[in-house]
Amino acid sequence: MINEQYKKMLEEKSVIRQLSEFATARGGQIGYENVFDYSLGNPSVPVPEKFTEVMIDLLKTKSSMELHGYSPSVGISSVKSKIADSLNERFGMNYTGNHIFPTTGAAGALAHALRCVTKPGDEVLVIAPYFPEYNFYVNMTGAKLKVVSADTEGFQINFEKLEEMLSEEVTAMLINTPNNPSGAVYNERTLRELADLLYRKQREYRHDIFLISDEPYREIVFEGVEAPYVSKYYDNTLSCYSYSKSLSLPGERIGYVAANPRCRDAELISAICSQISRGIGHNCPPSIIQLAVAEVGALTGELSVYETNMNILYKELTALGFEVVKPGGTFYIFPKALEEDATAFCRKALNYDLILVPSESFGTPGYFRMAYCIDTEKVERSLPALRKFVEENYR
Amino acid sequence: MINEQYKKMLEEKSVIRQLSEFATARGGQIGYENVFDYSLGNPSVPVPEKFTEVMIDLLKTKSSMELHGYSPSVGISSVKSKIADSLNERFGMNYTGNHIFPTTGAAGALAHALRCVTKPGDEVLVIAPYFPEYNFYVNMTGAKLKVVSADTEGFQINFEKLEEMLSEEVTAMLINTPNNPSGAVYNERTLRELADLLYRKQREYRHDIFLISDEPYREIVFEGVEAPYVSKYYDNTLSCYSYSKSLSLPGERIGYVAANPRCRDAELISAICSQISRGIGHNCPPSIIQLAVAEVGALTGELSVYETNMNILYKELTALGFEVVKPGGTFYIFPKALEEDATAFCRKALNYDLILVPSESFGTPGYFRMAYCIDTEKVERSLPALRKFVEENYR
Repeated sequence: MINEQYKKMLEEKSVIRQLSEFATARGGQIGYENVFDYSLGNPSVPVPEKFTEVMIDLLKTKSSMELHGYSPSVGISSVKSKIADSLNERFGMNYTGNHIFPTTGAAGALAHALRCVTKPGDEVLVIAPYFPEYNFYVNMTGAKLKVVSADTEGFQINFEKLEEMLSEEVTAMLINTPNNPSGAVYNERTLRELADLLYRKQREYRHDIFLISDEPYREIVFEGVEAPYVSKYYDNTLSCYSYSKSLSLPGERIGYVAANPRCRDAELISAICSQISRGIGHNCPPSIIQLAVAEVGALTGELSVYETNMNILYKELTALGFEVVKPGGTFYIFPKALEEDATAFCRKALNYDLILVPSESFGTPGYFRMAYCIDTEKVERSLPALRKFVEENYR
Repeated sequence: MINEQYKKMLEEKSVIRQLSEFATARGGQIGYENVFDYSLGNPSVPVPEKFTEVMIDLLKTKSSMELHGYSPSVGISSVKSKIADSLNERFGMNYTGNHIFPTTGAAGALAHALRCVTKPGDEVLVIAPYFPEYNFYVNMTGAKLKVVSADTEGFQINFEKLEEMLSEEVTAMLINTPNNPSGAVYNERTLRELADLLYRKQREYRHDIFLISDEPYREIVFEGVEAPYVSKYYDNTLSCYSYSKSLSLPGERIGYVAANPRCRDAELISAICSQISRGIGHNCPPSIIQLAVAEVGALTGELSVYETNMNILYKELTALGFEVVKPGGTFYIFPKALEEDATAFCRKALNYDLILVPSESFGTPGYFRMAYCIDTEKVERSLPALRKFVEENYR
């Protein structure tokens, strides 16, 4: 019989998707180039040519079996080693291939990491503002997502609130730095304080508390900002990575879980993940994509456009009187709306063909998100609309 | 905390994997070409050149965004339509793209189909002999797999036993034709009788009973054998397909769920599957592979070698006195062992460097499986070893 739980989910449409569909429809009327669509986090930078060359080379030179044969259920050994080496070189870690579990993007990485270190009924804490899909990623495993309200000063962590919520039922925390939607990057002080608190609570509760670190924006960090590598601060860390943003490959579904070599059962995490796969139909990301990303190492697309766009928007928003924390990375900015009801605010913006996403679903009411992974020329063209919107409604 | 359920699973190693590892180790001693490794169902036929050409062409001609951008969560629209058209042409169905949900291989297809039409606690019936991973695919959703014992006469369906087990708690049946491990193909009579029984039980219990049809071997059918298309016989059918065997692409994880246009909520199945994806981290198969398989349509590799191998083995096994049902398709054969304990039988075969898989894990004790997706030359070289094994142990 059709599962009613999933069928019901069809009725609750994602706000971001709805806005994106509105933008497409409006584009049909006035030309999509005239819709200032800040709704979707779809990378605008081309895939690096080197990646395409590597793919073509693999197709031309490898035998069918080598290239398209079954990947071992823990991932292709040479791929795992290359990823480990690249992380060690960049972040001074000491991963081996054994600690790396290739996945279908960050969604796949989180699906495995969450099941690996929680069981149904456990609590998982997340810091607001947070990516709304985490609700599904966590709650559909049987664990319960609990939201720690935001530090709206700088979008770091409100430790008082966090400690209040860090009960004995909590077996994992999910963080995301650089952050979607705020663009904030957790600084060293935040990560040290977080680690201290988690170590203290582990001792108090006499059980492990894992830190699941969602890092798809790790490579998009702006000038003068340090983005410390989370695993260096806390042993029980599982890094969840995706190449979607760094290589502009969101459709190819490729990422990994990297288990800190100092975490509990570090040598087993990858094998445990491969057992989890049997239940969720994952069975490794595509072989050719595994081989290609391992080959290009730490290569990224030409990501500097995101910083250019951020600077233009930050300057304009500040000039218009918005309260806004300057993003340290990603391609998002998260200003405070000019009225309490962010949904009403964003609805008014639609009249100016500005597609802004209200913040309710990010767990922090009263703000809005702009995803500025669009052409700089369009960002510039959107400024008069932004000004007009503010002047006609909030002056 | 590390999830103990998954950690424990590491101790229960798959027999097939263990045998395959033994074969690799033995290969290190005597040369892998001298190990008659019939353990793994890894396609031996090369990927068709046309597929490689299509991949290279996509990489050379499509823009990054078109090729590697996010796929909609229900799959790429043009891909869905092409798959529907190809199925309609071959099997006289009337699918639209709406009925097709692209997945990461058959494992992904089954993970979605099972969750779509069952809920935790429901019973799912499977006919022995069956692919042992079904235990994990089903039980890890929370539903319970129940095994209907084999019709060892012809590996069709023992309907008396099936009806006995078809209780009110059963909401889905999982079948696999052409079958792994028996190589049997369900004939029209079997499918008609199955449909009649399911229709009768649906009326009796006043709820839907879905037929989940796992069809990765659909394209490997031998001369003179008819392989009827399951969905034509029963409305509530979800076909789960994989290109792994037909295009020799098991590593690329590409397949689909095709919902019979006459099944309950047919127009919603694909959308419901996309909701299920949010909980299991699937988020569509890789875009480039979706586009490539849709482009090559019903193309397959040069699959005739499997029939050649089957004929050689069937003739030899029969001559040696084995009880064996002649396979109608796949690259498996499933003879009765020459002693009651199939594991003991297969252990003795190892002394002759013959890697055979005992049948206990397939739910039908006393048999063994040979996966003859290997070079014909090697099949021929294995015959003296097979003869010697039988003569020295069972004459």
